[in-house]
Amino acid sequence: MPMIRECVVTTADGPEAECAVHIAPLGLIVQEPYWTIAPFRPSSTLDNLRAHPFAVANFIDDVRIIAGCLTGRRDWPLATVDGFPVPRLAACLAHATLVVEDVEEDEQRPRFRCRVLEVVNHAPFMGFNRAKAAVVELAILVSRLDMLPREKIEAEIAYLSIAVSKTAGPQEQLAWDWLMERVRQHFAQPA
Amino acid sequence: MPMIRECVVTTADGPEAECAVHIAPLGLIVQEPYWTIAPFRPSSTLDNLRAHPFAVANFIDDVRIIAGCLTGRRDWPLATVDGFPVPRLAACLAHATLVVEDVEEDEQRPRFRCRVLEVVNHAPFMGFNRAKAAVVELAILVSRLDMLPREKIEAEIAYLSIAVSKTAGPQEQLAWDWLMERVRQHFAQPA
Repeated sequence: MPMIRECVVTTADGPEAECAVHIAPLGLIVQEPYWTIAPFRPSSTLDNLRAHPFAVANFIDDVRIIAGCLTGRRDWPLATVDGFPVPRLAACLAHATLVVEDVEEDEQRPRFRCRVLEVVNHAPFMGFNRAKAAVVELAILVSRLDMLPREKIEAEIAYLSIAVSKTAGPQEQLAWDWLMERVRQHFAQPA
Repeated sequence: MPMIRECVVTTADGPEAECAVHIAPLGLIVQEPYWTIAPFRPSSTLDNLRAHPFAVANFIDDVRIIAGCLTGRRDWPLATVDGFPVPRLAACLAHATLVVEDVEEDEQRPRFRCRVLEVVNHAPFMGFNRAKAAVVELAILVSRLDMLPREKIEAEIAYLSIAVSKTAGPQEQLAWDWLMERVRQHFAQPA
């Protein structure tokens, strides 16, 4: 299997200054020298990549952005990227500019194979944090709540919550709480 | 609880060029403006910090270094830090130079409260990777094999191995394999 880098992808529906920018947490499929974006159908990332074949891979460590995108909080500050028609997240530690080279169609997840133009380093990585990793895992669970049995969800949350209680800072705790609120809403729905 | 940043700490037993440098994966306890190193007793990190109260926190994403330190592979390339008496790991994405301000004695884990002199950014963070996080978790399990029941170890490994199979690159797979070899050695010992 190729390596998957979890990041937040920014895309836009056109090159104009007034275009709509979309922010989505996604796993990039690394097959050097190409990185592949495989958005689910339907999705705004998919629509944007078809309309305007450029993307920024934002490598963030503020997991509130990932949890926020999954819980209706998508309004994160953007920053212009010099010479590139899609903005980046202001908070990213590093970003990569991507140009779509070709598309492999698929009924569920079309694969946009991208060339990496440039990787730009903005701020230092400050170490692994087990709570950040737990938030990433919970975000993936939250994106699949409809597909997983309740016991599996609860068992994984019980495991992941240990790392959160032992190693989270305020950002990680808030991100965890946002996602857990979504989990509780899901379980509160009539089956 | 304070935030814990998982990193690799370099320490030295003295300021001389021929001093012995020690490399150890450790969780830094972040209580701004101080970061605390709490090495277990006995350990080379503890001895070095008493002899020479300086350390470098190396923020790495090559998890082979963490797995290597736990499996007898400590020979990772170092680089000099200008104006600081302890080297950093050549492979770190960023490092912080730390000076011990005071020590809180403890029978198990004395706490060295450190001032952060400087954080230096070397290379871009390239995104979260679930396999890297799984290696960090397995490394923590491996450091506690004698304290945990076999069923708990096996259940956690079964869970963590899913992320490895889905998202690892070659570095993460090798780090995982080194740690799993240690787990198998542990279970092969007479109880």
